[in-house]
Amino acid sequence: MKKLFITKIGGNVIDHPEELRKFVADFAAQPGLKILVHGGGKIASELAHKLGISQALVNGRRITDAETLKVTTMVYAGLLNKQIVALLQASGSNALGLSGADLNCIRTQKRQVEDIDFGFVGDMTEGSVDAGLLATFVDAGIIPVLCSVTHDGRGQLLNTNADTIASALAVSLSDRYEVQLNYCFEKKGVLMDVNNEGSLITRMNKTTYRKLVGEGVIAKGMIPKLDNSFDAITKGVKKVIIGHSADLSKMMTPHENPGTVLVG
Amino acid sequence: MKKLFITKIGGNVIDHPEELRKFVADFAAQPGLKILVHGGGKIASELAHKLGISQALVNGRRITDAETLKVTTMVYAGLLNKQIVALLQASGSNALGLSGADLNCIRTQKRQVEDIDFGFVGDMTEGSVDAGLLATFVDAGIIPVLCSVTHDGRGQLLNTNADTIASALAVSLSDRYEVQLNYCFEKKGVLMDVNNEGSLITRMNKTTYRKLVGEGVIAKGMIPKLDNSFDAITKGVKKVIIGHSADLSKMMTPHENPGTVLVG
Repeated sequence: MKKLFITKIGGNVIDHPEELRKFVADFAAQPGLKILVHGGGKIASELAHKLGISQALVNGRRITDAETLKVTTMVYAGLLNKQIVALLQASGSNALGLSGADLNCIRTQKRQVEDIDFGFVGDMTEGSVDAGLLATFVDAGIIPVLCSVTHDGRGQLLNTNADTIASALAVSLSDRYEVQLNYCFEKKGVLMDVNNEGSLITRMNKTTYRKLVGEGVIAKGMIPKLDNSFDAITKGVKKVIIGHSADLSKMMTPHENPGTVLVG
Repeated sequence: MKKLFITKIGGNVIDHPEELRKFVADFAAQPGLKILVHGGGKIASELAHKLGISQALVNGRRITDAETLKVTTMVYAGLLNKQIVALLQASGSNALGLSGADLNCIRTQKRQVEDIDFGFVGDMTEGSVDAGLLATFVDAGIIPVLCSVTHDGRGQLLNTNADTIASALAVSLSDRYEVQLNYCFEKKGVLMDVNNEGSLITRMNKTTYRKLVGEGVIAKGMIPKLDNSFDAITKGVKKVIIGHSADLSKMMTPHENPGTVLVG
């Protein structure tokens, strides 16, 4: 099977034009089949703030109301997605920006209202990803660039977590390719102590992970990402690396293992 | 040759969610090969106003500065493009939203500074459109939905007039298809008297057009659209109709000729 790299980028890199430019150039320079998934950093919340759209919270959980969804769609599917695509094209990479609505490539389900109405949030289901379509693009040398806006197939755009999109793509493509999933962010990887970059966990399997969560060593914010990652590995993804965006080229080089490498 | 309809929608329809929804449903219901090009209506200028971005003007001409380009990209490539795509998908039409940067489908040249620096405006050149790529999508039953954001191939997004994009697409695809170009807006078509919808010019060739321009009968705002249209006809486009968005289904029905039909 051919190798496919699915890379998710978010956080600080997205917020800083120069870092984004550097990251995109790095990404473009790596050989192989690739898909990029991006989040939105702080630009969307800054725009919402400027427009006087208050961050809707219920029991401390973020809500995507109609106005917030508009901002998300503008920033993620518009500004960031097209800037990234234009930068990739400038680096000779034939990128295609996609929301989940485009070619119906990611169809999600509006989150059911139980205790909290999360608003226009789309949850991935078994058949959400059109893996065949994405494989057609990838095999044609095209780099799909996915933002975290999806749709319900009934005309409603929905906000979906970018980490979840990346892992769902990885799983759905793992019977066609040997998939490596790279989560790039602003830390070296998973740290024993969040304030100490020297405390990097270089390798972790599910047993170690459960133990560290039980001991309260793994920071809360990392848990959804790690749950997603181990779930992806269980479902056929070969390798997941969580690491610093500046280490992307190492992540994509065989036998180099920067960041935290997750294994089955 | 197979028939291809290229439809441009802009103005009032874009600004009103219910009208847009109706237009998209109408568009989806028409059989045949189709491409949609959309402008942005007033949403972009309203957003710019809310953000305190002043409309830059030099000698009465609009300038696309860096901040305005961001707003354009957010509204055109993000909000509107994805809303239209999601609505088309809901109508069973397999739409793919594209900026010019995506797959490098429309590469333009930043307008040269002569008397005025128009800022981030991209002008179409001979080789701007990747007609082969668009034909591949169209022949696969996909409906490309193009917004008026293009790129220069060097990482810079650019703002390009949607009417110009529509006519350039029509011309570039006219050796592969029998192309009909539909310009949809909020009037019945080209009027002898802009305030009288009863004064519709139902059919016009280039000679009549020149005569009416000479007599000052054609309103100034219509001239770029009509120049584009006659230029497209000269270069191989079979038929151009300028008409009301509510008349789209008639425009796309053989032997019905609503609006103003332009002929060679």
